[in-house]
Amino acid sequence: MVINAAQLCELLQGELVGNGDEKIHGPSQIDAGIPGTVSFLANPKYEEFAYTTQASVIIVSKDFQPKSQVRASLIKVNDVYGAMMTLLEKFGSNGVPEAGISELAVIGDHFHAGNQVSIGAYAVIEKSVSLGNNSIIYPQVFIGHDSVIGDDVVIYPGVRIYPNTRIGDRCIIHSNAVIGCDGFGYKPDENGHYVKINHVGKVWLEDDVEIGANTVIDRGTLTLTRIGRGTKIDNLVQIAHNVNIGEDTVIAAQAGIAGSASIGNLARIGGQVGIAGHIQIADRVEIQAQSGVHTGKYPAGSRIFGYPAIPYTDYLKSYAVFKQLPEYMKRIEELEKQIAELKKNKT
Amino acid sequence: MVINAAQLCELLQGELVGNGDEKIHGPSQIDAGIPGTVSFLANPKYEEFAYTTQASVIIVSKDFQPKSQVRASLIKVNDVYGAMMTLLEKFGSNGVPEAGISELAVIGDHFHAGNQVSIGAYAVIEKSVSLGNNSIIYPQVFIGHDSVIGDDVVIYPGVRIYPNTRIGDRCIIHSNAVIGCDGFGYKPDENGHYVKINHVGKVWLEDDVEIGANTVIDRGTLTLTRIGRGTKIDNLVQIAHNVNIGEDTVIAAQAGIAGSASIGNLARIGGQVGIAGHIQIADRVEIQAQSGVHTGKYPAGSRIFGYPAIPYTDYLKSYAVFKQLPEYMKRIEELEKQIAELKKNKT
Amino acid sequence: MVINAAQLCELLQGELVGNGDEKIHGPSQIDAGIPGTVSFLANPKYEEFAYTTQASVIIVSKDFQPKSQVRASLIKVNDVYGAMMTLLEKFGSNGVPEAGISELAVIGDHFHAGNQVSIGAYAVIEKSVSLGNNSIIYPQVFIGHDSVIGDDVVIYPGVRIYPNTRIGDRCIIHSNAVIGCDGFGYKPDENGHYVKINHVGKVWLEDDVEIGANTVIDRGTLTLTRIGRGTKIDNLVQIAHNVNIGEDTVIAAQAGIAGSASIGNLARIGGQVGIAGHIQIADRVEIQAQSGVHTGKYPAGSRIFGYPAIPYTDYLKSYAVFKQLPEYMKRIEELEKQIAELKKNKT
Repeated sequence: MVINAAQLCELLQGELVGNGDEKIHGPSQIDAGIPGTVSFLANPKYEEFAYTTQASVIIVSKDFQPKSQVRASLIKVNDVYGAMMTLLEKFGSNGVPEAGISELAVIGDHFHAGNQVSIGAYAVIEKSVSLGNNSIIYPQVFIGHDSVIGDDVVIYPGVRIYPNTRIGDRCIIHSNAVIGCDGFGYKPDENGHYVKINHVGKVWLEDDVEIGANTVIDRGTLTLTRIGRGTKIDNLVQIAHNVNIGEDTVIAAQAGIAGSASIGNLARIGGQVGIAGHIQIADRVEIQAQSGVHTGKYPAGSRIFGYPAIPYTDYLKSYAVFKQLPEYMKRIEELEKQIAELKKNKT
Repeated sequence: MVINAAQLCELLQGELVGNGDEKIHGPSQIDAGIPGTVSFLANPKYEEFAYTTQASVIIVSKDFQPKSQVRASLIKVNDVYGAMMTLLEKFGSNGVPEAGISELAVIGDHFHAGNQVSIGAYAVIEKSVSLGNNSIIYPQVFIGHDSVIGDDVVIYPGVRIYPNTRIGDRCIIHSNAVIGCDGFGYKPDENGHYVKINHVGKVWLEDDVEIGANTVIDRGTLTLTRIGRGTKIDNLVQIAHNVNIGEDTVIAAQAGIAGSASIGNLARIGGQVGIAGHIQIADRVEIQAQSGVHTGKYPAGSRIFGYPAIPYTDYLKSYAVFKQLPEYMKRIEELEKQIAELKKNKT
Repeated sequence: MVINAAQLCELLQGELVGNGDEKIHGPSQIDAGIPGTVSFLANPKYEEFAYTTQASVIIVSKDFQPKSQVRASLIKVNDVYGAMMTLLEKFGSNGVPEAGISELAVIGDHFHAGNQVSIGAYAVIEKSVSLGNNSIIYPQVFIGHDSVIGDDVVIYPGVRIYPNTRIGDRCIIHSNAVIGCDGFGYKPDENGHYVKINHVGKVWLEDDVEIGANTVIDRGTLTLTRIGRGTKIDNLVQIAHNVNIGEDTVIAAQAGIAGSASIGNLARIGGQVGIAGHIQIADRVEIQAQSGVHTGKYPAGSRIFGYPAIPYTDYLKSYAVFKQLPEYMKRIEELEKQIAELKKNKT
């Protein structure tokens, strides 16, 4: 697709500063822009590249005032991220498999499929699975029996779904994620050997959930592990048995949530965070990357940090002192010396 | 399966308080119990739900004394977890593939299979593999040549087993786990480029080991990476080359154990723990989640915490002060001021 | 292969101390050496085993002076690791699939393959993929359309490569790694629901890169996620969208690098390290395991540690005081008491 700067500006309902005839072949990153592409200046950190990029057009906020000369044409818009998303949809497509069920897939009995589904080669679908309209099962996926999958779902190659899983509409599950495996539950026998606790619960991903590559979500012991509507989970995340996550929450890569923890709506959980079992995290709590959360006592909207996690600014202040501890230690020793002298002089 | 409360009580050898005619269709979680189900009160944290649950029957410890009215019938037992396990086995089954080798599996030469094995579609088994009686290889599994797999083993879809791996009886390996890949070993050449060290060792999972989904266990460089009998490993765990783990140890999700570390028997390793290479962790050591263990000096049965890890209560005490460091800093400054004044007044 | 100690010594251009007729059937680890094998003493930590190992031959540094009697024959060499690598290549081979394209693989249109490629059963290669000479695609691999893969590449079972990925010569990708999935990018709509940002960029692994099992590398939003020549990445690592990693860098297991971060050449990143988004890590920076890096301000060659990371020795010194904080707290209280007394006495 080729489009010129003026057409682009019209599409984005922006204001053009510069040459409307510039031909645009695709998007590029501002710090690696090349002629014939359109870049974005959304994060002020990258402003310096606006003056040096080779991109032909830059989309900027309508408030943007250049501090020096910009070679590229500018399109000023109300919402740079929104404009970027519009463009990515226009230019980008990674290609979608055609509808149809591969002859090289194994489909169990009592399969119910909606319209226009796609099932790729070497996929295995056990018995009594239901799949909604327009859903795409890529090659090499495994779906256990009695699972129910909604409309417009995309399941990428190598995803493994254990039996009895429920997946809502418009969910996306990336490669090699595992949904519904047994929780990590054992009971020692009289000899101290661990005996496995059978897990008969299931996983329910509500509508509009996205699950990253190689993420694992354990089934409930008795009832559900639930991921609420619109929640987005990054790669390599661990969600243990009986966890209950609210709606519109985001969980960054490599975070881990232990068994029976509960997370509210609109929470933001950083990368590599660990959340202890059986605690309840309130709505809109924001947890800094790598924090270890051992309590659910922080109210809705709190921002927490540390190991164990405490309020964000408290951690920063304590850590600022931590970095100077050897110096404070010397000051204490100095005080002790001076007091000893004062006392000696006194006597 | 439907059973009434009196029959259930007899099965569990408990004592019934309430209506023996209640019909039970399955288990439920006490905080989400529904009529016609049986719940469990094992963790005292959940006691409040005993008074509000909709479950028809609750299994409680024989010592349980209600603090207010309980609507459900109670079955009092010596061991609530044990009763739960008995019931989960009775009610729950996720279905097991039938015995038989799929025509859609690729089986290499010199394959030796015991009785009643099951091998699913699109599995690939390289040459000279041996598989014991009653073992189940789910679809889409890969087993490298010369691997030896015991009796009653279950290997879930998408597991990859590199060549020469040895897996004991009754092991369970969850989806997309990788067993026996090369360790992370390189040697810089004269130009500073890393040259790969060939790994010719193997992995040995002894009997009764369970491995979680997406966990990775590297092969030994020369000899073994060993996981001892009865050890249970959760999801997304990293076990590096030459690691030696004892018996009946549990390792929670996302923990990582670096090369050539050795872990004793009956140790308990929390989620996201990191253990440094070449150290030896004693028997029954308990490591709190997210700790970083840099030394093996803690004796058997120690409980450790922190980054780097120190004795558990020491870390808690130091961290309690850490949280107040800005205040202590002010007290030091105040002391300095007062001393300065005392000295001034003196002169 | 069987070789005697004298032949082995000649092969390694070493100096033999002991019996040249000892027959060697393979390598072993010095702490688990068995008769008829050759062990290595490279790490001085293991010296004690030199005096007790059952191995028939030990390869040692030419500087090695036994502190007590060694039963094994010794071969003294300039470079023990180098000798070990030579031997591992000689003794070890895990077997390589034969060249040829399995009839049980699905190959898309416009596939271009070099000479002597191997493609295993149940692999799926979408349209317009190019594969270089001698490259090995193991069974059950997925390669998305328009990907370009170099010469002498090895891709192990279950790897998933999303479309448009570029993989250089001699790269190795271990089982169940995922390359090129969407980055974790969303924009809230007017109702606070997250809307997915389409990712149209790609991943480029330059030559001689190795990627561990179950590692995930996200595609760029607009342009590239780049892994530089010779960089080695361990298992279960997360590399987010738009990350740019230099050459000859090593990243240990379970580390995570957030979006748009940039890492220099020859850096060393420990296990479970977290690196924040949009920062730049200089060349040769060494980051201790589990550190959380929030700034790129440390110069080339720095060694950093902590959460957040600070210079290595600073962290150690502060942590040494941290461990004694309860005692320092008491000393502050004692000082306050003494000052109060001094003041009281004064008045």
